[in-house]
Amino acid sequence: MAAACQKLQARQAPRALSWALGFTDSIRHGLLPTQGSLRFKCLTRATINQKVLEAEYAVRGRLPTRAAAIQAELANGAKYPFSELVHCNIGNPQQVGQVPLSFNREVLALLTAPRMLERADELVRLNLVSAEAAERAREYSSKSAKVGAYTDSVGFKFIREEVCDFIARRDGSGHKPDISQVFLTNGASEGVRLLMSALAAPHLGKVGIMAPIPQYPLYSALSTLMDCELVGYYLDEENKWAVSVPALTAAYEEATRRGVIVRALVVINPGNPSGNNLTAETLEQVVSFAHEKGLVLLADEVYQENVLTAHPFKSMSSIVREKQLDLEIASFHSLSKGFLGECGVRGGYCVFENFDPEVMEQFVKLKSVELCSNTVGQLSVGLMVRPPCADAAALYDEEKQHVLDSLRQKSQILHKTLSSLPGISLQEIGGAMYAFPQVKLPKAAIEAAEAQGVAPDEFYCMQALESTGLVVVPGSGFRQLEGTFHFRTTFLPTLEQMQRAMASFAQFHTDFMRRYA
Amino acid sequence: MAAACQKLQARQAPRALSWALGFTDSIRHGLLPTQGSLRFKCLTRATINQKVLEAEYAVRGRLPTRAAAIQAELANGAKYPFSELVHCNIGNPQQVGQVPLSFNREVLALLTAPRMLERADELVRLNLVSAEAAERAREYSSKSAKVGAYTDSVGFKFIREEVCDFIARRDGSGHKPDISQVFLTNGASEGVRLLMSALAAPHLGKVGIMAPIPQYPLYSALSTLMDCELVGYYLDEENKWAVSVPALTAAYEEATRRGVIVRALVVINPGNPSGNNLTAETLEQVVSFAHEKGLVLLADEVYQENVLTAHPFKSMSSIVREKQLDLEIASFHSLSKGFLGECGVRGGYCVFENFDPEVMEQFVKLKSVELCSNTVGQLSVGLMVRPPCADAAALYDEEKQHVLDSLRQKSQILHKTLSSLPGISLQEIGGAMYAFPQVKLPKAAIEAAEAQGVAPDEFYCMQALESTGLVVVPGSGFRQLEGTFHFRTTFLPTLEQMQRAMASFAQFHTDFMRRYA
Repeated sequence: MAAACQKLQARQAPRALSWALGFTDSIRHGLLPTQGSLRFKCLTRATINQKVLEAEYAVRGRLPTRAAAIQAELANGAKYPFSELVHCNIGNPQQVGQVPLSFNREVLALLTAPRMLERADELVRLNLVSAEAAERAREYSSKSAKVGAYTDSVGFKFIREEVCDFIARRDGSGHKPDISQVFLTNGASEGVRLLMSALAAPHLGKVGIMAPIPQYPLYSALSTLMDCELVGYYLDEENKWAVSVPALTAAYEEATRRGVIVRALVVINPGNPSGNNLTAETLEQVVSFAHEKGLVLLADEVYQENVLTAHPFKSMSSIVREKQLDLEIASFHSLSKGFLGECGVRGGYCVFENFDPEVMEQFVKLKSVELCSNTVGQLSVGLMVRPPCADAAALYDEEKQHVLDSLRQKSQILHKTLSSLPGISLQEIGGAMYAFPQVKLPKAAIEAAEAQGVAPDEFYCMQALESTGLVVVPGSGFRQLEGTFHFRTTFLPTLEQMQRAMASFAQFHTDFMRRYA
Repeated sequence: MAAACQKLQARQAPRALSWALGFTDSIRHGLLPTQGSLRFKCLTRATINQKVLEAEYAVRGRLPTRAAAIQAELANGAKYPFSELVHCNIGNPQQVGQVPLSFNREVLALLTAPRMLERADELVRLNLVSAEAAERAREYSSKSAKVGAYTDSVGFKFIREEVCDFIARRDGSGHKPDISQVFLTNGASEGVRLLMSALAAPHLGKVGIMAPIPQYPLYSALSTLMDCELVGYYLDEENKWAVSVPALTAAYEEATRRGVIVRALVVINPGNPSGNNLTAETLEQVVSFAHEKGLVLLADEVYQENVLTAHPFKSMSSIVREKQLDLEIASFHSLSKGFLGECGVRGGYCVFENFDPEVMEQFVKLKSVELCSNTVGQLSVGLMVRPPCADAAALYDEEKQHVLDSLRQKSQILHKTLSSLPGISLQEIGGAMYAFPQVKLPKAAIEAAEAQGVAPDEFYCMQALESTGLVVVPGSGFRQLEGTFHFRTTFLPTLEQMQRAMASFAQFHTDFMRRYA
C-alpha cells in the first residue's frame, strides 16, 4: 500500500489522490490541511510550491500586522499609551507626510487627461500648472507618450534616452550607456527579479547569489523562490557597515567549498537596512572582487540621492568603465526613494552593461511576457532623470531641498536619541532612509522572548510598539550576526512625530532595560 | 581530464571554470558564446536558466520586428505598396486610435495633481472636469487614495470593496465575494503569474497546466518558465471554437498517463485568440470537469465586456456558486480590454475563491515581495467597476457605446471580407478583439516556406505584411492543430484603416493563392 501510495502521489493530482486514498490516508500523506477547513483542496501547504512556503518577506510581517490591528482599535476608541502610530517600518515617504513634487505631478496630470493637455495654456494662466510642465507634457505627447497604450516591452524609447543622458551627466560624459542597455521597470524590484530568474540555472547546480547581511529581504525572498542560495557576506558593523574584501572572500569560499556555484554579487549602496554610504575605495574593491571571481554585479543604487555623508555617491558602473573591466553589471534605480518618494507609482530602470548580446535578447523576451511597465511609472522616470530647468525650476529645487533637509534633520534627531541610550549602539547614518541600531538585549529579555517562542528582537520591537506606537522592523527580517539583535527604523515621519516618537522610545528603552536587567 | 572537467563544471562559477579550462576547452564545454563577443561572460546561452531560453512569447516575435523596420524605412521615404502599417497584431486599442474615457482620466488627473484637486471646483466651472469626476476624486482622496505611497500588498481596501460590489451586480447578489479574496494586480498577467508560481511544485513531480489550443502565449511562456507542462486541449474550431468535454478529457488522460500531475485548467472566455464566447451550457461543463478532476480553475475573463453574440457573458465563478461547488477558482479581469483599453496603465484584479486559508496567506506574501501594484492602475480598477451615475454618466455612456459599436462594426467588416475569400475559413466572432481565421495553404506555399526554413503561416503573414502593411500574428505562436494554419488579427484600428486593410488583404490573398496554386 505504501509503495502504491507513493506511486500514486507522484503521478496523480493531489485531490484525485486524496479521493483515491480516502480521508485518513490523505491527512497522513500531508495532502490535506490539518487545521482550518477540512474540505479537499488542490492547493494546500503540502502541495503548494515549497519554495513559496519557504520564502520570507519580513518588511510586511507580524509587527505591521499587529500595528494595523492597533490602528483599528485606536479608531474605535481603544486606549493605548499613545494617540497615534508612528510608522518607521517601511520606506514609504508619502504615506507619512512627504509631499510629491509639483512639476512631476503637473506633467503627469496633463498627460493623463487629454482635454487638459489641449487646454494647458488656460491651466498655466490659472497657475494650476507651470508653463514648463505644459511644455514638457506637450513634448512627451508629441513623442507619442500615450498613458493608455502598451509601450515597447523595455519602455518608451525617448525616456530611455533621457536615462542615458542622466547617467552621462551624473558619472561624466565617458559613461553614457547605450539605449539598448536600458529597461524601464515597475520599480527596481522587477528588474532584480528578471535578472535573478536568468541567473537561477539548475542545470549548473545550486546557484549562489551573494548579498549583504543585513540585506533588503527582496534578495532573500527571490533567492528562495528561484531555488538559489543567498550567500550572505557580513557588513562590518564597527566600520560604518562597510563591505570588506575579507568578508566577501570568506563567504564566497565557504559557499564554493560546499559546491555552490556563486554567480552574482548584490551590493546595496547607499545601504538598506544599514544606512551606509560606501566610499569610492570600498566600491573599487567590490568591483574588483566581482571581476576577479567572474560574478554578475547587481548594483542596487536606489538611494543614490539619499546621501548624508561628506563624500558623494559614486556609481559602481562608473568604476567598471574607469577600470575598463569586462564585468557584467546591472544597475538599478527607482522612483520610490530619493527626494521623490513616488513608491505607489511603481517606476524604475535597470541598465545592463557588458552582457552577452544573446542574453540581452533573453532579457527582452522575459520583460515582454508581462507586456510592459506601467506608463505613468515610465513617464515619471523621465521626470526624475530630467528635472525642470526653466520657470518650474525654482519651485522644484525648493521642494527638493525641503525634502532632503528635512530627512537630514530627522536623521540627526534619530541618531542623537538612539546613540545616547545605554545598550544601543548606532553607526553613522551615511545614506538611504534607515538606521539599523544594535540593541544589547539583557539575558533575561532573551529568555523571556524564548519562553514565548518569539525572536528576541521581535519581542523587543513588539513591546516598543505596544508602549510607544513606534513601528519598526526586527533585525532578524534582514539577517544579522548570530547573537546580535538589531532593528531597522526609517526617519521619514514628520519632524514633530519623530521628536515625539524618539522621546517616548527613549523612555520605553530605559524601562525595558531596567525591567530585564 | 573529462571527469575533472565535469566536476569543475558542477562546482564552480562558469567564468572561473572558463579560466580553469582555457579558451578552447571552454568553447567545447559550451561555456562561451560561439558568436558575437568572444569575451568571457558569466551569463551566456549555455549558462542562463534554460527555462528562460526555452520560453516562447510570440505576440512580440519576428513579424512585429520586421514591421518596426518597415515603419522606420517608411519614415525615411522608402517605397512600399502601402503608405502606412495597420497594426492588427496586438490588442492595444489606444495605440491604434481608441480614445480613453473622459470621466476616468479626469478623476485620475485630479488625484495625480493635488493642487488641481484642491481647486477642482474651478476646473468644473471651466468644463475641464465634470462635477462627478471632482466628487469621485474627493471621495477617493478622503479614503487616503495617495498616488505616491505603497498601498497594502493586495491593494486599496476601498477599491477591493468596489470590486466585490461590481461582481454582485454583474452575477446577482448571491455572488458577492469576500474582500479578502480580491487582489489588485498590475494587469491580469501578474495574477496569473502569482498563481502559477504556487502551482508549480517540483516535489510532486511534473506539474501540468491545461490551456486551450489555440491559447494566449502568456500561459505557455509562464508554464515553461515555471518548469510546468502546458497540457493543451483543442478547441472545437468547427463549433465556433467551443470547449468540449471530450477534448478536455482526452488531454487530461493523455498527460496523466505520461505521469504528469495535472493541477489546473485555464479557460479564456471570451477567447484569445479564438474570439469565441462560450455558452452557459459549455461553461457549466467546464466547471464540472474541473471539479471532478480536482483542478484549480483559472477563469481568464478579461474580455467580459467584449461580447458580440446574442448570449451574454457569464462568469465561471457564478456557476461555481450556483452549483455550490467547492472548486478553487481564480477569476482574472483587466483594464486593458473591454471598452476602456487602458493597456498602458497596467491594472487588473484577481478573485481567489474557495482556496485554503493557509494558501491565501502565501498568495499575500508572494504579492508583497514586489510591494504593491501601481496605484494609478488600482484607482482605474475602481473607476472600471463603478462607472459614473450622475452628471458624467451621459458622456460616459456615449463614449462607451461608441467604442463598442465601432468594434462591432469593424468585426463585421473583417468577418465579411475574410469569409468571402476562397481558402480562408472563419468562425463567428463571438467576443474579445480577435479573429483566428484558418488559411488552407497550397502545397507549393508550404514547400516554399520550408525551403526558407520558416513556418508556413509565418511565411504567409510576412508576405501579407510586405505587400499590404497589415501586421498580424501567425497561428503557430498560439499553437494550432498540426497541419492547419491560422493567423490572429485584431479589429482595433480605425474604420477607415480596417476598410483599406481588408481591401488590400483580399487582393494579396487572391494573388498569393494564385501564385502557389
